[in-house]
Amino acid sequence: MAEDFLDTLEATIRSRRGADPTTSYTAKLFQRGRAKIAQKVGEEAVETVIAAVADDRQEMVSEATDLLFHLMVLLADAGLGLDDIRAEMMRREGVSGIDEKAARTP
Amino acid sequence: MAEDFLDTLEATIRSRRGADPTTSYTAKLFQRGRAKIAQKVGEEAVETVIAAVADDRQEMVSEATDLLFHLMVLLADAGLGLDDIRAEMMRREGVSGIDEKAARTP
Amino acid sequence: MAEDFLDTLEATIRSRRGADPTTSYTAKLFQRGRAKIAQKVGEEAVETVIAAVADDRQEMVSEATDLLFHLMVLLADAGLGLDDIRAEMMRREGVSGIDEKAARTP
Amino acid sequence: MAEDFLDTLEATIRSRRGADPTTSYTAKLFQRGRAKIAQKVGEEAVETVIAAVADDRQEMVSEATDLLFHLMVLLADAGLGLDDIRAEMMRREGVSGIDEKAARTP
Repeated sequence: MAEDFLDTLEATIRSRRGADPTTSYTAKLFQRGRAKIAQKVGEEAVETVIAAVADDRQEMVSEATDLLFHLMVLLADAGLGLDDIRAEMMRREGVSGIDEKAARTP
Repeated sequence: MAEDFLDTLEATIRSRRGADPTTSYTAKLFQRGRAKIAQKVGEEAVETVIAAVADDRQEMVSEATDLLFHLMVLLADAGLGLDDIRAEMMRREGVSGIDEKAARTP
Repeated sequence: MAEDFLDTLEATIRSRRGADPTTSYTAKLFQRGRAKIAQKVGEEAVETVIAAVADDRQEMVSEATDLLFHLMVLLADAGLGLDDIRAEMMRREGVSGIDEKAARTP
Repeated sequence: MAEDFLDTLEATIRSRRGADPTTSYTAKLFQRGRAKIAQKVGEEAVETVIAAVADDRQEMVSEATDLLFHLMVLLADAGLGLDDIRAEMMRREGVSGIDEKAARTP
């Protein structure tokens, strides 16, 4: 599939594994380990939720970007990435499958 | 930029605004409103965190997919989307800027 | 220390370990296990956060009650309880210690 | 009802409203406002969830204490407190009502 900014971000994130934690925030995250990265994902999600309910659009974009970034670091820490998300979406019978499948369940 | 599966997903999500909530889960989410969509984002984040700490890779992919989907519905509910995330990343001086900027802050 | 409604609640929760999951919600939670109970704590916290930001006082009380209940089930699942929370508060040099200690840290 | 350590904590928290934010963490929380206090509740819940799934009992007690403390500050910020939680539990037909009512719902 086509290269997108998320693929570029993913490549950047992966290249930071084992990099110097004092110069790269991503390398520092990998060094701190799975639980700490997961904690950041949870925290950024909370901030996204608050910005959304407060209807602060600028803050929503900022927090959603942080959430997406940390989610990709979390996936990378487990050797996972966008291709696994793509495959999961396919497994759910295509992009529209998420919508249709979800509509069938309570 | 190049079209990617996330752009296709975004287009699908946007087309569900005002659609029949009884046949589309996405339409139902839009109908329930901002707070309920935000709640789903928070819940999926919690499930992603738990799967990550339990090191259940299959569950991580499944929950991360759900999180990404609901995050995009939340953004769409505010008239926001991937282009805003892309612009935010550019504003941070390119994709690597996230990494460098973050490394400078405590 | 004095018996309070939370102690009564704690005793009730503990008595549900091993009880019939079809008649007791608490017994069902114990049966589903640690990760599922933790998930409920996370979900109720998200709902409390949303109610608080939306300034819905009735909903805040309802969600905070649910959060407190599930937190106590989570602690009970690990053989922990209010006495451990009390001891932790004492360890922090008394109730005011939380406030003072926290004020010292960034 | 009987005075408990939580009542003492609640009284301490309430006395910090309007206190000097440079010497009291609680006063600083009140000053930062509802959204920031809610964010802390969300973050401490995430940390409690992670400690629970990782089965780190010491960390569970520490994070549950932090969660309880910030939840009480959040309630206090809305003029709410333990008496409202108690009343809500009564409204649910007594402490065991939580368990029974919840068991009836899906």
